[in-house]
Amino acid sequence: MTEVTVAQEVLHDNTRDAKANRQRFDEAGVYVLNLMSGPGAGKTTLLERTAEALKARLKVAIITGDLETRRDADRLGSHGIPALQINPGGACHIEAHQIAKACDRLELKALDLLIIENVGNLVCPAEFELGEHDKAMILSCAEGHDKPGKYPLMFRESRAMLLNKIDLLPYTDFDLDAAVRDARALNPKLEVLKMSARTGEGLEEWFGWVEARCQALRAGRSS
Amino acid sequence: MTEVTVAQEVLHDNTRDAKANRQRFDEAGVYVLNLMSGPGAGKTTLLERTAEALKARLKVAIITGDLETRRDADRLGSHGIPALQINPGGACHIEAHQIAKACDRLELKALDLLIIENVGNLVCPAEFELGEHDKAMILSCAEGHDKPGKYPLMFRESRAMLLNKIDLLPYTDFDLDAAVRDARALNPKLEVLKMSARTGEGLEEWFGWVEARCQALRAGRSS
Repeated sequence: MTEVTVAQEVLHDNTRDAKANRQRFDEAGVYVLNLMSGPGAGKTTLLERTAEALKARLKVAIITGDLETRRDADRLGSHGIPALQINPGGACHIEAHQIAKACDRLELKALDLLIIENVGNLVCPAEFELGEHDKAMILSCAEGHDKPGKYPLMFRESRAMLLNKIDLLPYTDFDLDAAVRDARALNPKLEVLKMSARTGEGLEEWFGWVEARCQALRAGRSS
Repeated sequence: MTEVTVAQEVLHDNTRDAKANRQRFDEAGVYVLNLMSGPGAGKTTLLERTAEALKARLKVAIITGDLETRRDADRLGSHGIPALQINPGGACHIEAHQIAKACDRLELKALDLLIIENVGNLVCPAEFELGEHDKAMILSCAEGHDKPGKYPLMFRESRAMLLNKIDLLPYTDFDLDAAVRDARALNPKLEVLKMSARTGEGLEEWFGWVEARCQALRAGRSS
């Protein structure tokens, strides 16, 4: 029983911290996206492409959760945008208080877009609100189409599912229609974008999606 | 501070439960392998192939951790071997007490080999001993070669790394040498097996590895 009580307290604190983050983001007018996926689905590659494409039109920053290395932050920072690393100390997700601390080092009011690259994990990150406006998740076509049924919370919580690595479709048994059908059975409003961060296919639609979400926030239609 | 204390207590209980499991496995003479990977690396497909290949020579059972569906247990059970499902209730890993309960439903003494298919997650499962003789982990070539540096505990804890989906190597930027080098920098004794559970390439070596581990246990050389 003790374990459950403490877990609830921790969640309660996280909810409070997330609310404070959200207020801060809204006051600064910065659109915040929490990007989640399993390991190796392509978050960092997609974010490199996204930063490169959008930095001429939007002020972008990225906070990345990386367990042990500075690789992701270094990769992202090489694109000339602020890239901060949170090391969650071997933990399996980012929490709201860590985002609050990272934001102390960003000039939020100067930003249009802040993307949080969560820890690579299809389970735990979906349970922790960070104050973001939207969650999006990447499903790699190499991972198999049965993932919605096995990791349902991630699919329920996300505004968009990014089906990445579609260049590998001819070489796998991935059933794209089944993946979309099962994901929408969990979350009927789920938006689906197909792409390959490696070949560039479908990325323009994704960039447009992100820009439209930033504009919706500015127009007061963020949720 | 409360959070840390409770976490330690939980870990301590798990360690005790794992030790009890191990004693039970040793007394029954069953070799137990804890198989871990991120989501979609190919655990279930590999286990289907393994059960099918080994069931004529060994008495095999499988315990699978599946968050919400019975899909994996149904897939595995269709091969005519005992396949039990643990539903860890939305949690991100299996714990030792859950294995103990599942084992109450197995005739351990009649088994040669018990494989535990952990929850698809490269972080948390590595932190929880289950009483297994060995851990093995699957890294899919579609996941990227930078995973050892980012999820080091999983690579440190494993006796073997199974590099799966090598049929996708020609279509990805995966650097196989870098993956092996980085993994062995964390764990110099790590055994590496390359395979494609989909095409069957490399599987004979894997079946031989599992059989040899079962024989080593019977010969009293399990660790």
